[in-house]
Amino acid sequence: MEKYDIVIVGAGPVGLTLSTCLARWGYKIKHIDNRPEPTPTGRADGIQPRSLDLLRNMGLKRQIMAYEPAKVYEVAFWDPAASGIHRTGTWASCPKFIDARYPFTTLLHQGMIERVFIEDIEKHGGKIQRPWTITDFENDGKDANYPVQVSLAHVDGTQKETVRAKYLFSGEGARSFVRDKLGVKIIHKDPISHVWGVMDGVVRTDFPDIKMKCTIHSDAGSIMVIPRENNMVRLYIQIASSTDPDFNPRKSATAEEVQARAQAILKPYSITWDRVEWYSVYPIGQGIAERYTLDERVFMGGDVCHTHSPKAGQGMNTAFLDAVNLAWKIHHVESGFSPRSILKTYESERKLIAENLLNFDAKYAKLFSTRLPSAGEVAGATQANQMPAEENEFIKTFKASCEFTSGYGVAYNANTLNWSSAHPAQHPLFLSAGNGTTLRTGRILLPATVTRVCDANVVHLEQEIPLNGSYRFYLFAGEPEATKNAVKDLAAHMGKKSSFYGTFLHKNEDVDRYHERHNPHTQFLSICTIFNAPRSQISIAKQLPSVFARYNDHVYADDVWDQRVPDAKAAAHAKMGLDERKGGIVVVRPDGYVGCVVRLEEGNGTGEALDAYFGAVCGQKFGGERASL
Amino acid sequence: MEKYDIVIVGAGPVGLTLSTCLARWGYKIKHIDNRPEPTPTGRADGIQPRSLDLLRNMGLKRQIMAYEPAKVYEVAFWDPAASGIHRTGTWASCPKFIDARYPFTTLLHQGMIERVFIEDIEKHGGKIQRPWTITDFENDGKDANYPVQVSLAHVDGTQKETVRAKYLFSGEGARSFVRDKLGVKIIHKDPISHVWGVMDGVVRTDFPDIKMKCTIHSDAGSIMVIPRENNMVRLYIQIASSTDPDFNPRKSATAEEVQARAQAILKPYSITWDRVEWYSVYPIGQGIAERYTLDERVFMGGDVCHTHSPKAGQGMNTAFLDAVNLAWKIHHVESGFSPRSILKTYESERKLIAENLLNFDAKYAKLFSTRLPSAGEVAGATQANQMPAEENEFIKTFKASCEFTSGYGVAYNANTLNWSSAHPAQHPLFLSAGNGTTLRTGRILLPATVTRVCDANVVHLEQEIPLNGSYRFYLFAGEPEATKNAVKDLAAHMGKKSSFYGTFLHKNEDVDRYHERHNPHTQFLSICTIFNAPRSQISIAKQLPSVFARYNDHVYADDVWDQRVPDAKAAAHAKMGLDERKGGIVVVRPDGYVGCVVRLEEGNGTGEALDAYFGAVCGQKFGGERASL
Repeated sequence: MEKYDIVIVGAGPVGLTLSTCLARWGYKIKHIDNRPEPTPTGRADGIQPRSLDLLRNMGLKRQIMAYEPAKVYEVAFWDPAASGIHRTGTWASCPKFIDARYPFTTLLHQGMIERVFIEDIEKHGGKIQRPWTITDFENDGKDANYPVQVSLAHVDGTQKETVRAKYLFSGEGARSFVRDKLGVKIIHKDPISHVWGVMDGVVRTDFPDIKMKCTIHSDAGSIMVIPRENNMVRLYIQIASSTDPDFNPRKSATAEEVQARAQAILKPYSITWDRVEWYSVYPIGQGIAERYTLDERVFMGGDVCHTHSPKAGQGMNTAFLDAVNLAWKIHHVESGFSPRSILKTYESERKLIAENLLNFDAKYAKLFSTRLPSAGEVAGATQANQMPAEENEFIKTFKASCEFTSGYGVAYNANTLNWSSAHPAQHPLFLSAGNGTTLRTGRILLPATVTRVCDANVVHLEQEIPLNGSYRFYLFAGEPEATKNAVKDLAAHMGKKSSFYGTFLHKNEDVDRYHERHNPHTQFLSICTIFNAPRSQISIAKQLPSVFARYNDHVYADDVWDQRVPDAKAAAHAKMGLDERKGGIVVVRPDGYVGCVVRLEEGNGTGEALDAYFGAVCGQKFGGERASL
Repeated sequence: MEKYDIVIVGAGPVGLTLSTCLARWGYKIKHIDNRPEPTPTGRADGIQPRSLDLLRNMGLKRQIMAYEPAKVYEVAFWDPAASGIHRTGTWASCPKFIDARYPFTTLLHQGMIERVFIEDIEKHGGKIQRPWTITDFENDGKDANYPVQVSLAHVDGTQKETVRAKYLFSGEGARSFVRDKLGVKIIHKDPISHVWGVMDGVVRTDFPDIKMKCTIHSDAGSIMVIPRENNMVRLYIQIASSTDPDFNPRKSATAEEVQARAQAILKPYSITWDRVEWYSVYPIGQGIAERYTLDERVFMGGDVCHTHSPKAGQGMNTAFLDAVNLAWKIHHVESGFSPRSILKTYESERKLIAENLLNFDAKYAKLFSTRLPSAGEVAGATQANQMPAEENEFIKTFKASCEFTSGYGVAYNANTLNWSSAHPAQHPLFLSAGNGTTLRTGRILLPATVTRVCDANVVHLEQEIPLNGSYRFYLFAGEPEATKNAVKDLAAHMGKKSSFYGTFLHKNEDVDRYHERHNPHTQFLSICTIFNAPRSQISIAKQLPSVFARYNDHVYADDVWDQRVPDAKAAAHAKMGLDERKGGIVVVRPDGYVGCVVRLEEGNGTGEALDAYFGAVCGQKFGGERASL
């Protein structure tokens, strides 16, 4: 019986992201999908700012952008007016208070996004087996290493396969065989459900905001407008709601009916269609799976675990992050870096995000569906382009949710991975938000622009280590003279075989790693060093101990001015809230979220704190005691 | 006999650029090359900042960047020291005083660049016929429309073709059949010639600047280091010079000899090669063709017209600009926009640039070859990383030439296209550098970041009109209230059938141009309007007369802060040196160079000035008089 590291069911965003990561990291994957080809038209299309960071970190952003997606920088709000509708205001989709590298939403048809992942998987020797489906599975433990048996079949039933795997992942979408067989229930957070119509097409109109994302409330109903690649526009129209007196979840509408409705809503503007690329009507309830896994062998993610309205464009983005969160944890367990128990944090971290999403969505969907008072009844909303003094609840909710909807609101609670004062690792040198750093554990690392020393390239620090499954170790080394001894002491500590670093050194020393940039010593960790000094004054060989100097491509000068910290001499240090002279160490999880921040000090303290943190993460004791054995 | 608009000989950078432009604009092209396939390895590799702008304007930058080229931001200077060599300083390859969107040189093997063009040509239905060569040609005028007869043959002589064409272009490289047959002489500006060795490969070294561009002078000789894609390094070593006492232009050296020489020069650092991808030795003289065309039917460009040393990375970049300069002029003549006489400006404009290049190159090459005094003899050059108080002549020349070598120094002299006080068009409303504008005619338009009104995207204004062969008309409309009447008057003027605008309206009005963004009314011109106002306060339909409002995708808010003009309210207006309140009009040639700048005023003056400018460009009278006929 063929054995695989993982069987992945479903080649939508969540399955593809997981497959892409694990294929790159060398895992043997059986990936099936029950559709004969990738999504041909329609479905999800919004890539949030944070997701674009992620795609860039995976080296896929350029391929996405090659499709020339639409970019949404602002959302326009239209409300009822005396004669039809009028714009009451606009708001940035990712406002300036969010420190985003790409402060816009990228709109591209899901099929193109799937193709980008599929090409990458194929480049790494993988493939999607289509149209195949899962027919049975069991974690029977008959093989300790490959405890899950999975039965697969061609959708026409002509071919069958049974394989064993270390893991099974379901990215099947809202209807999931795996979830059903596990008996995992979907909890409906909000009893309200809706029937939506969605239409992609090319239009002619004099509506001035047709290239903007718009939410339009009119006396004739509500609509959402979303620009798309290839001069297309997507319209979302709510066709029925369970709050309607005569609600019928099977209520439908023809494309022509939806177009007529859109025409009525957009008055006094006109709109006609040159062509319709995709049209669909579907009921959407709000649901969340009670569990994401029962045994840390069979996992689920994406729409299998959470469904909600499409309006905030969160489905695909949540799926990406589900997959990445799981991918690196499986990788660390299988690499022997971490105990199996870290797999429990997949559910605890990702289910919280889904719950936040559903809470937001319920509120937003309800407000979106609420008919607003007509203009005659509204005070203050007369001057076009200006937000009425008293904003309506919908706009208020939208604004308050920008951080969440842009993807930067993801905040994982404290646990073994995300340090807090309650973490098993205790040491006086840990820094916490407001106390020596601005960074918050469990949140994404802030972006920062620096100059790479080896080639003088101006680069985005947060992107310098690709999504390679390694922890990211940022040694903010402050002023070289001030931290010289501290850096030397840390290097000496890390150089010990018993340290968190020394423990995971490559076993095979015969491999030629001269050209290895990110993982010259270990797959566990990649190191960046950032000096508060002009690039021309930094000498990697002279100023850094060999453990850090070896990462020759990852030494940076913090010498690029930043508008957000205009008075800082070292903007990256300043943004992280670290002492510009004395620096500090930021440990970032393989998925980009901050794990812990440690003061950089002379002596053993810094190394000990790091040993303690990684000791908890890795479930083993690092440092002095073992060294003295 | 088959007839073509143009026969292009040679598929190096100059031929491919010309072919790409003309293919997009709908011309029928016969394009041949005598090599069986694109450049497989080696040859040119440096794309200057200005060229990257151009490639982006052609929509090809993303494809170039997909190859992950190296980027050179700084150049390091190494000079003889007591024990080998030491770095005496570094300098930006495109310093901050140059307002460049991409302040770096992009290093990528010529074959990859050629492939990007070839794919684009194929997308537009063209192809390169290989390996074919030109065997004869004559501008015999036997067909008034297709005056040039060209004979072509497969390089193995088995196939032949004779065709007629409107134009023949030679991009054959330094050895040119066309140039020889025309009897055009190459003038050797500098009698000195050199033999160069160039080697691309993957190295191992402890030389700290191996990922930088370096010029290294040592007691063992001089070398230039250039980083490349795929972890490669290019080394240029001068093997012989006509100033050597025993100069032999056929002197050669083996790869091993060049490596040994590099090892000696780099001491005390070590260097070895993992692999050598390309190695070549070639003699280079400095030469410039006396003429680029004799009859404005048979043209030449690129290396056919100018050869020089490879050290400043100018060859391919000059070729790109030769081709674009010619492409739009042929297009305007063939479209009936301009008289045949504008073709004369190809030679006058491009030969001047080549002469400047050769003057620079002669000086630079000579200095590069000059052995510097050893460290013992040099005062002040002791502190590493700091430029010695008294810079040597080589470094001074390098610094002084940055604007030129980055491509932004290209300055075409005044002529019919580039307005000056001596231009045939005379009107009090023309502005000139220092007198109402900072822009200089014959120079590239300055970059500016603005917000596009229709979709709130933050965009690069100078890139908004693609290289579509149209003149670019930037209506800087200042504050809407202040310019309302002036804009209305200008629109009324342009709306007349006799104006420079009205004269070239599309003939066929039955074509559906609803989705046409850049050329809704005419192929002659594309219009952008930039208001000094926040985006949310601009209403295209209400604030602009229909001639401007029709360019719905080309209306911008000048509301993005710019570090270069930190106090300006309207940064784009300020950078162009235009009155932030009253605006002004900038006319840019299809290749991005400023043609003229005109004050925006109420009444007929602005329109008259523009009529006068375009009247000279187009060789016909525009404006009132014809209108009254």
